[in-house]
Amino acid sequence: MRILLIGAGGVGAAFARIAARRSFYEAIVVADYALERAQAVVAAVGERHGDEVGARFTAARIDASDPAAVTALAREHGATHVMNAVEPGFVDAIFAGAFEAGCDYLDMAMSLSSRHPERPYEEVGVMLGDRQLAKADEWEAAGRLALVGMGVEPGLSDVFARYAADHLFSEIDELGTRDGANLVVRDEHGAEVFAPSFSIWTTIEECLNPPVVWERGRGWFTTEPFSEPEVFDFPEGIGPVECVNVEHEEVLLMPRWIDARRVTFKYGLGSEFIGVLRTLNLLGLDATEPLRVRSKDGPVMVSPRDVVAAALPDPATIGPRMEGKTCAGVWVTGTGVDGEPRSTYLYHVADNAWTMAEYDSQCVVWQTALNPVIALELLATGAWSGAGVLGPEALDAKPFLDLMALPIDEGGYGQAWGMREQPTPSAIAAGTATMGDTPA
Amino acid sequence: MRILLIGAGGVGAAFARIAARRSFYEAIVVADYALERAQAVVAAVGERHGDEVGARFTAARIDASDPAAVTALAREHGATHVMNAVEPGFVDAIFAGAFEAGCDYLDMAMSLSSRHPERPYEEVGVMLGDRQLAKADEWEAAGRLALVGMGVEPGLSDVFARYAADHLFSEIDELGTRDGANLVVRDEHGAEVFAPSFSIWTTIEECLNPPVVWERGRGWFTTEPFSEPEVFDFPEGIGPVECVNVEHEEVLLMPRWIDARRVTFKYGLGSEFIGVLRTLNLLGLDATEPLRVRSKDGPVMVSPRDVVAAALPDPATIGPRMEGKTCAGVWVTGTGVDGEPRSTYLYHVADNAWTMAEYDSQCVVWQTALNPVIALELLATGAWSGAGVLGPEALDAKPFLDLMALPIDEGGYGQAWGMREQPTPSAIAAGTATMGDTPA
Repeated sequence: MRILLIGAGGVGAAFARIAARRSFYEAIVVADYALERAQAVVAAVGERHGDEVGARFTAARIDASDPAAVTALAREHGATHVMNAVEPGFVDAIFAGAFEAGCDYLDMAMSLSSRHPERPYEEVGVMLGDRQLAKADEWEAAGRLALVGMGVEPGLSDVFARYAADHLFSEIDELGTRDGANLVVRDEHGAEVFAPSFSIWTTIEECLNPPVVWERGRGWFTTEPFSEPEVFDFPEGIGPVECVNVEHEEVLLMPRWIDARRVTFKYGLGSEFIGVLRTLNLLGLDATEPLRVRSKDGPVMVSPRDVVAAALPDPATIGPRMEGKTCAGVWVTGTGVDGEPRSTYLYHVADNAWTMAEYDSQCVVWQTALNPVIALELLATGAWSGAGVLGPEALDAKPFLDLMALPIDEGGYGQAWGMREQPTPSAIAAGTATMGDTPA
Repeated sequence: MRILLIGAGGVGAAFARIAARRSFYEAIVVADYALERAQAVVAAVGERHGDEVGARFTAARIDASDPAAVTALAREHGATHVMNAVEPGFVDAIFAGAFEAGCDYLDMAMSLSSRHPERPYEEVGVMLGDRQLAKADEWEAAGRLALVGMGVEPGLSDVFARYAADHLFSEIDELGTRDGANLVVRDEHGAEVFAPSFSIWTTIEECLNPPVVWERGRGWFTTEPFSEPEVFDFPEGIGPVECVNVEHEEVLLMPRWIDARRVTFKYGLGSEFIGVLRTLNLLGLDATEPLRVRSKDGPVMVSPRDVVAAALPDPATIGPRMEGKTCAGVWVTGTGVDGEPRSTYLYHVADNAWTMAEYDSQCVVWQTALNPVIALELLATGAWSGAGVLGPEALDAKPFLDLMALPIDEGGYGQAWGMREQPTPSAIAAGTATMGDTPA
């Protein structure tokens, strides 16, 4: 296996650092629009793991917006797999370039959506991944695999859903991805500052797009932003966080391979962050369309969203000043294999102190990057195989979760995942139980 | 009396429209940095009131940041009074230029403050008006009058405070200016939009500066922004609005001429607006320091606050799409002239529908501009006179309020003002009374 990794940002760098400890591949080419960023990632791997490991990594420059450039670089290095680790705006180009090069393909976010022109908060328009899934027949006919949405969310969440469907439930009512964290960032004086752990540009895109929900008999539909607020009590000390519906790939992927009555994604933005996003929207500061603004050098045209991003700390630099944990998981409700009602949260938690110490990566990007490394290892060993455009839930979840949880000294990734039984949503909504209760 | 009006923005235009109906002056020169704006104001007066009135108005261009330009223009037109109606950043220059020209001077906002370098939220630094009040002896020696803070707030609020001290109270506990409105702005489809009725740039300055409070024995001190939140029930259908401490001229002026235990200013920003300001501050979008931002033409330097201002509707254009009322007043508590405890709100309300119909001015700027016109008329008739740098409370309140309230057909301004007895703050705080109650 020869991997062309496109993107040497936070997630790309973490991918390289995680993969550096594994031996399932022959080579990884780290490519970025900024060659020096790719070179820095390669150099860091060599410094930490020595020349032998370092020799498997090469840096290259790429314009990821050009499918032909992707094809050419993949061919130049004899890549068998293209690993997309850049902003979702580049998915279409990289996806096309990888196919042309005859490579298999993985990404962690799917092709972008466009809202319904007349009823954006009721009906879907072009959905996340639509342009990729439309090519499924071509990929299948070519015997090639595009494994899409293979980060942590989407990715690990989809693996959990498949595991629940195969091993825990006889009938699923709802597959509800729930993502939450208790991360705080401090300034040099120790005071808490507002510093999102991921790109505010992307977060605005994700959170202000109409959230999508899937229901059996109704299919996909959208709602107003921040709909169905719910306080979810996250495990391992993270605690209660306000979650709201957000547009996310799980809702588009899970119903295609798993039988359920309803599929949702709720993001634990917390009330402060929701307030910030609402205000940015209210004031038009989420807009990407350039605005005429006075400056010392006369009027200039800038996009308000770019100004917001420029005013905030760069998420790539905040890892050392961050503390707390992030949790990704799926709340599955329905009927257990024993025929009894069941409500289970399957999850994985990453602690920033640990990911910084072990991988020099902040926990949110590290948790994202972990999963495609595991997936590639399963593809390399033949434990996973397939053709077409598939979500993670199209493949058997057990080998993935087993390899992830297996201790490092036994050849695994040493990443325990959790399973918590909790009262059903209806019991919580009725106020007869709280999430922390042991279910009857 | 020959008036040089500097500033043909919202307040300047409203001043001209109100003054156009009065005859106490010989001439008004409307001067602005943008000559066409001054010309438009003069033309509108001529169209509405005919050639005879129009002939008393002249348009001129001025750079208000240059004291010498102010002096020159005042001399050129033989001005006896300089009326400052531009942003407070120009106060120092216009104040100096007027003195040099031998004119009397009026403004509606005082020279700007600078926060205390070490303890900004505890101690005052340079206070509002400090640089003007420092020149009081020079003005007095020259026999000239600078009547500062003569808008609605400061201005009418200070007149109310003086009236209360002279006619209603034997001892004053607190002079608490309270400003609130129920204004809404709608878009072309009738939907409510976020559109402040005054410059967001100035509002940020005013609301994020450390609020100042005065107490007998302690003097002036500052607090954190948005301190001492209080829901004040405004009269004439406006209703309850959340008010917070804000830095404002009344707190600097009233204690110099009126005996009270405490002087405060609370602005009815409402919880939504407070939330917006807090968020802008949290994200650093209130900053005036330019920031490097990407643009299609390469990186540019823009001030985030300028971007916020550019993203919002221009307050000068929203009058026709606005509805509601604005209220300015002072809540006075203490001992009445009868020796009994007393708690009285003295106020004036302006209705946007009426100010638009009568004066083609939105109510907030109209209410601001009304008061210096009345003050100038009192100075012209000799009902008011003085020398030095004085706040409105240094002069007798009765002739002002009488002329304001006198019906138009009897030669007054036809602007009724109100007085409402209400329970004391301590009774409200203790929960034994609400503001709407008739006090015992």
